[in-house]
Amino acid sequence: MFLAQRSLCFPSGRAKFLKTISSSKILGFSASAKMSLKFTNAKRIEGLDGNMWIEFTKLAADPSVVNLGQGFPDISPPTYVKEELSKISAIDSLNQYTRGFGHPSLVKALSYLYEKLYQKQIDSNKEILVTVGAYGSLFNTVQALIDEGDEVILIVPFYDCYEPMVRMAGATPVFIPLRSKPVDGKRWSSSDWTLDPQELESKFNSKTKAIILNTPHNPLGKVYNKEELQVIADLCIKYDTLCISDEVYEWLVYSGNKHLKIATFPGMWERTITIGSAGKTFSVTGWKLGWSIGPNHLIKHLQTVQQNTIYTCATPLQEALAQAFWIDIKRMDDPECYFNSLPKELEVKRDRMVHLLESVGLKPIVPDGGYFIIADVSLLKLSAIPVSAFCNSETKSQFEKFVRFCFIKKDSTLDAAEEIIKAWSVQKS
Amino acid sequence: MFLAQRSLCFPSGRAKFLKTISSSKILGFSASAKMSLKFTNAKRIEGLDGNMWIEFTKLAADPSVVNLGQGFPDISPPTYVKEELSKISAIDSLNQYTRGFGHPSLVKALSYLYEKLYQKQIDSNKEILVTVGAYGSLFNTVQALIDEGDEVILIVPFYDCYEPMVRMAGATPVFIPLRSKPVDGKRWSSSDWTLDPQELESKFNSKTKAIILNTPHNPLGKVYNKEELQVIADLCIKYDTLCISDEVYEWLVYSGNKHLKIATFPGMWERTITIGSAGKTFSVTGWKLGWSIGPNHLIKHLQTVQQNTIYTCATPLQEALAQAFWIDIKRMDDPECYFNSLPKELEVKRDRMVHLLESVGLKPIVPDGGYFIIADVSLLKLSAIPVSAFCNSETKSQFEKFVRFCFIKKDSTLDAAEEIIKAWSVQKS
Repeated sequence: MFLAQRSLCFPSGRAKFLKTISSSKILGFSASAKMSLKFTNAKRIEGLDGNMWIEFTKLAADPSVVNLGQGFPDISPPTYVKEELSKISAIDSLNQYTRGFGHPSLVKALSYLYEKLYQKQIDSNKEILVTVGAYGSLFNTVQALIDEGDEVILIVPFYDCYEPMVRMAGATPVFIPLRSKPVDGKRWSSSDWTLDPQELESKFNSKTKAIILNTPHNPLGKVYNKEELQVIADLCIKYDTLCISDEVYEWLVYSGNKHLKIATFPGMWERTITIGSAGKTFSVTGWKLGWSIGPNHLIKHLQTVQQNTIYTCATPLQEALAQAFWIDIKRMDDPECYFNSLPKELEVKRDRMVHLLESVGLKPIVPDGGYFIIADVSLLKLSAIPVSAFCNSETKSQFEKFVRFCFIKKDSTLDAAEEIIKAWSVQKS
Repeated sequence: MFLAQRSLCFPSGRAKFLKTISSSKILGFSASAKMSLKFTNAKRIEGLDGNMWIEFTKLAADPSVVNLGQGFPDISPPTYVKEELSKISAIDSLNQYTRGFGHPSLVKALSYLYEKLYQKQIDSNKEILVTVGAYGSLFNTVQALIDEGDEVILIVPFYDCYEPMVRMAGATPVFIPLRSKPVDGKRWSSSDWTLDPQELESKFNSKTKAIILNTPHNPLGKVYNKEELQVIADLCIKYDTLCISDEVYEWLVYSGNKHLKIATFPGMWERTITIGSAGKTFSVTGWKLGWSIGPNHLIKHLQTVQQNTIYTCATPLQEALAQAFWIDIKRMDDPECYFNSLPKELEVKRDRMVHLLESVGLKPIVPDGGYFIIADVSLLKLSAIPVSAFCNSETKSQFEKFVRFCFIKKDSTLDAAEEIIKAWSVQKS
C-alpha cells in the first residue's frame, strides 16, 4: 500500500494520518508478554495505537525529501504575528497562567470577529472556548457530548483524527462517502463531489448524536454551498442531531466560492459547535491554538472537559494571537488583510499545481478551498499512499487511486516538486 | 465554607481548585429543560462541572486583591528564558508543527538532564512524552492506563485535578490521609505529616491499578524521604500496581531536604510514570509544557492518548524551553543555575512567611519543598476556604482549619500581604 519515493515525499498526507491508518486498522495488543495485565493500555484506546507513522516521520525528516505531504506551511507566517510573540515574551505576567477557557483578550477578539461573521452577539466567556489547536477542540467536543453507544456520522474522506476520536468516546462512526458526478472531458472540481441526500438521510436514526462536517474540506477542497448545507441542517433538525463543523480553512476559499457557516442557518446555532484554528488562519500551525464557538448549553460541557484535561492554553501565544487578530480585524476590507491576502497568494499556487499535474498526465481535482490538492494517479500506475487513508475500510477502494498534495509551500519547494514530477513523467514515457 | 476577604485573596488555592470543590461535590445536571436529551453532557463528565470557581476567578481578577492564593509566580521568569522565546518567534519553521510526542531538541535536553538524575539511559523518543503542562501529563497517564472499574489510591490532601481525572476515566478513587504527629510546643513541619504503613496497605487490593504520589507535595510542602518512598515502592511491587509520581516541584526543595525519585528505587522504573513541569522549573506557568518519563511499555500508551487528543504541543515554546534547559544543564553545579538559585530565593520567602504567620498567632506548617505554605487558622476563628478543598468528603474535617498561601511572589506582593495580615491581627485583638 505504501511505497515511499526516494526523493519526493509524494504519497502522503501528514505523518499524523499514517498513524491513524494503522491505528484504526490494526488491532494493537500492547502489553509485552512478561508484564502484568495491569500494564496494558486502558480499553478506551485499544486499537488506536500503531507505529507505522514513526517510519514516515523518519522519511519526512530526510532533508533530501521534498515534502508536499504534510499539511503545514513552509511559507513565512506574517511578520507582525511573529513580532507580537517576540514582544509579549518579555512581559512577565504573560508568561503565567491565564483564564482556563481562553485568555481574556483573545476571547474578546474572537467574539468581536465572529459577531461580524455570524451577525449575532457572541458571549466571549460562555460561547467560546480556546483549545490546544482545532484538534483539541474536536477532542473536547467529542468527549463532552458523545457517549458510549452513540452514532456519529462521518463524511468520507475525512480528516484523519475524526474516526479514532469517535471510537475513543466509545461511539460508533457511521460513514457516508462524497461521490463524484462523471466529468468526461471537463476539468474536475471539488464541487463535483457531493452527498446524495437520500443516502445521507439513511444514515440518521435515533442513536445519531452528531454529524461532523468539514468545510472547506480536507483533503478534497470542497466548499459546501448553501443548498448542500441546508440539506444537512434540515436533517440535523429533523433527527435532533448535533453538528460539529470543522471550519479551520474558513479563510482559504478561492475565486467564485464563498465559505458559509452552518451555524448561521435557521435552527442550527443551538445545535452546532464550530471549530476554528490559529494555525490555519495565520499560518502558524506550531502555535497549537484553536477555538470552539457555540451556544453556552453546549460549550459549558466542553469547558468541563478542558478543566479536567489540560486546564488552560499557553498564555504568550494566546496574547500574541489576540494582537494579530486585532491588526487584521481592523482592515478586513483591505486586500492587505491576511484573511484576504493569503487565499489570493494560495490561489496562484493552486493553479500552478493544477497545471503541473495536468502537464504530466495526472488528473487533479481542482479544490475550491483549503490548501490541499488531490489527483487521480491511476493513469501513471503509481503505487502511493492513497487518499483512502482518509476513509473507512468500506469506502477505501473508491479513493485509492488518489494522492494528496499540500500547496501552502514556498515557490522554491514547488520548483523542486515540479522537477521531480516532470522527471517521473519522462521515466514513464 | 467560603468567606472571601475584601482586600486579601487569603483563603484560597488556585481558581482551579474551586471548580473542583464544586465539581466533585455537586452533582451537576446540565441540560436546560427545553433542550433535547441529546444536548446533555456525556456521562463521563457527569458531576465534573460546576461553576463556583467562576466567582472566585472574578474575585481574584480584582486588582485590589493581594493574591497569595493562586499557584503562579509573580516573580520574573529568568531573563534568558524569555529571550529565547523572543528569538525563536522569528524563525519561520519553529512556528509550525513539530513531532507529536515532543519537539526533538526538547526531548533530547530532557533525556540528557534526567539521565543524570536517574543514573540510567533514557530513550528520548520512546521514554519521554511532552505534554500540555503537567496537567496534560496526568490526564494522558490516567486515560492511557486507568480503566473503568479500577481503583486509584490518592493521598489526602491532593492536587485538585486528581480526583475528577480518575472519575472521568470511570475509576474509583480510594483515599488515604497524611496524618500529623503531635508537635506540642515544637515548630510544625511538613515532615510531621506521614502515611501510616498499615493503613496504606489496607487500601491496596487486586483492583488497585495505581497510586498517585506527589513529592514535593502540594499543598503541604512535604518531601518524602527514602524510608517513606520505600514503603510505597514495596506495596506497588507486592500488589503489582503502577505509580504515577507528580514531581513538578522537584527543584524546589529547602535546606536539609533532598528530592528523591521513586522511579529510581529497585523494581520501580518499569511501573512508574514521573511527571515534570516547565512552568514550575522555570517559573513560566503560562507556557503550559510538561512531560512524562517512564518505560516505553507505559509511555507508548500515553503517546496513543496524545495522538488522539491534542496531537502535539506548541513548537516555539518547546524550542525555547530546550534552549533554556541547555543553559542550566551546563552549569548544574553553579549556584547561578536556576535549579539551585530559585530554591535559595524561595527559602528566604518561605522563612519570611513563616515568621509573619507566627507573629500574628497563626500556626504555619513549615514546608520542606514546593511554594505553598499552609497554616492552622483555628486560633483566629477565620472563616476561609480550607485545605479541605484538597480532600475528599470523608477527610475534609481533618483539614478545614488550614488555609494555603503561595509564596513564589515578589517582595512587594508579600509586603502587601503582610500589611493586611497584621491589620487583621490587630482587629482580632
